[in-house]
Amino acid sequence: MNLLIFTEQDVCGEHRIRISGRRFDHLMKTLRVKVGDQIRVGELGGLCGSGTIEHITQDYAELAVSVQQPPPPKLPTTLVLALPRPKMLRRILRACAEYGVSDIHLINSYKVEKSFWQTPLLNQPSLETYLLQGLEQASDTLLPSVSLHQRFKPFAEDLLPTLCEGKSAVVAHPGDYPVYAPTSENPSVLVIGPEGGFIPYEVELCQAAGCEAVSLGPRVLRVESAVAAAIGAQAILLKR
Amino acid sequence: MNLLIFTEQDVCGEHRIRISGRRFDHLMKTLRVKVGDQIRVGELGGLCGSGTIEHITQDYAELAVSVQQPPPPKLPTTLVLALPRPKMLRRILRACAEYGVSDIHLINSYKVEKSFWQTPLLNQPSLETYLLQGLEQASDTLLPSVSLHQRFKPFAEDLLPTLCEGKSAVVAHPGDYPVYAPTSENPSVLVIGPEGGFIPYEVELCQAAGCEAVSLGPRVLRVESAVAAAIGAQAILLKR
Repeated sequence: MNLLIFTEQDVCGEHRIRISGRRFDHLMKTLRVKVGDQIRVGELGGLCGSGTIEHITQDYAELAVSVQQPPPPKLPTTLVLALPRPKMLRRILRACAEYGVSDIHLINSYKVEKSFWQTPLLNQPSLETYLLQGLEQASDTLLPSVSLHQRFKPFAEDLLPTLCEGKSAVVAHPGDYPVYAPTSENPSVLVIGPEGGFIPYEVELCQAAGCEAVSLGPRVLRVESAVAAAIGAQAILLKR
Repeated sequence: MNLLIFTEQDVCGEHRIRISGRRFDHLMKTLRVKVGDQIRVGELGGLCGSGTIEHITQDYAELAVSVQQPPPPKLPTTLVLALPRPKMLRRILRACAEYGVSDIHLINSYKVEKSFWQTPLLNQPSLETYLLQGLEQASDTLLPSVSLHQRFKPFAEDLLPTLCEGKSAVVAHPGDYPVYAPTSENPSVLVIGPEGGFIPYEVELCQAAGCEAVSLGPRVLRVESAVAAAIGAQAILLKR
């Protein structure tokens, strides 16, 4: 945790917050803070700054906080991803928040197992838990937006063309396509299929919506590795 | 599993292999093969090709195999990594094998917890289990070499200069350094520190050994995300 993220619910006075639960445990057991210590803090959806530990009990810590700096810039990237299995989704959500992705669309596809849509992970509070872990790592306060689209065709025909408008949009698919060129200069849309890939019909609908088909290199990567390579490369190149 | 990898121990006749255990379970339960089916096979350390399922019992499957194609090219990349905690190390090993890293050096550093060196994961058979998962995904047959260096100073002073000779060598460290530029054109050495980063003295020794200090962007990434971003970007750019 490189940033202690607080919300309105934690505020217990003017410029003062009270932290309990998981974050309190982390402060005490991992960071081993003492009264007087300073740590980096940020308000969820707001500014970053510093906090001074003023009071510690068995159950909570109270900090005086001052927040004035904006969080780091987001990647101008929209990730469209065929819903992966829950274990992998957790790691991908955390990594995307860490890399600074601003918008994530989880979509259906022929090879997405129906049961994946039943995971409790897709409830908003559960999604936020994993996104928050990424924000805490990267000292960011802005949650990426996550939308779910359980039907591929309406998404690809109605929404995807709008998402792609005026952006550099690509669909990653194994095959003899131009190699994907990561950049974080311009707004972009990156569409990545499920384990086993999109079926040809799905690739065609993405192309019709304005996506160029690109290759992610000569190796067939796991979805998680493909996302990390493509988005991570953008995160490295992002200007301060 | 995109490639069934076999070894000499699996050979049961001329151009014939017998597969049991984990790989047999995967063939039956995940790929659901039947007699007559063809799958991609590769000999560990050798060539790739195809195999035909000829016989299935309760415990094993026998395949007729023909291997003639070389595995995909490796990245000309040496990864030097401060030993991460075991859970993360497993995922990093798998991802590195998947991306095609050829050499991995796991090193000590001031902020590496001593207990990490005690993990049974560092035994050769255990390391190979996770590397093999990466090779099976990426249809590769060549295991990356993994070396362990429990003392930082002798590694950085005696071995690192030799590793860096004639290569583009960088040490990734948060700070006001030039941004890392991924390429897979030239042999390179990438040095990545532990959670919490290298201490200044360690960065200096890496620089003295011939590494340029570079930044991996404005966000502080988990080690796993940093490795995936830097190496994954190279894997995307690798020529077929």
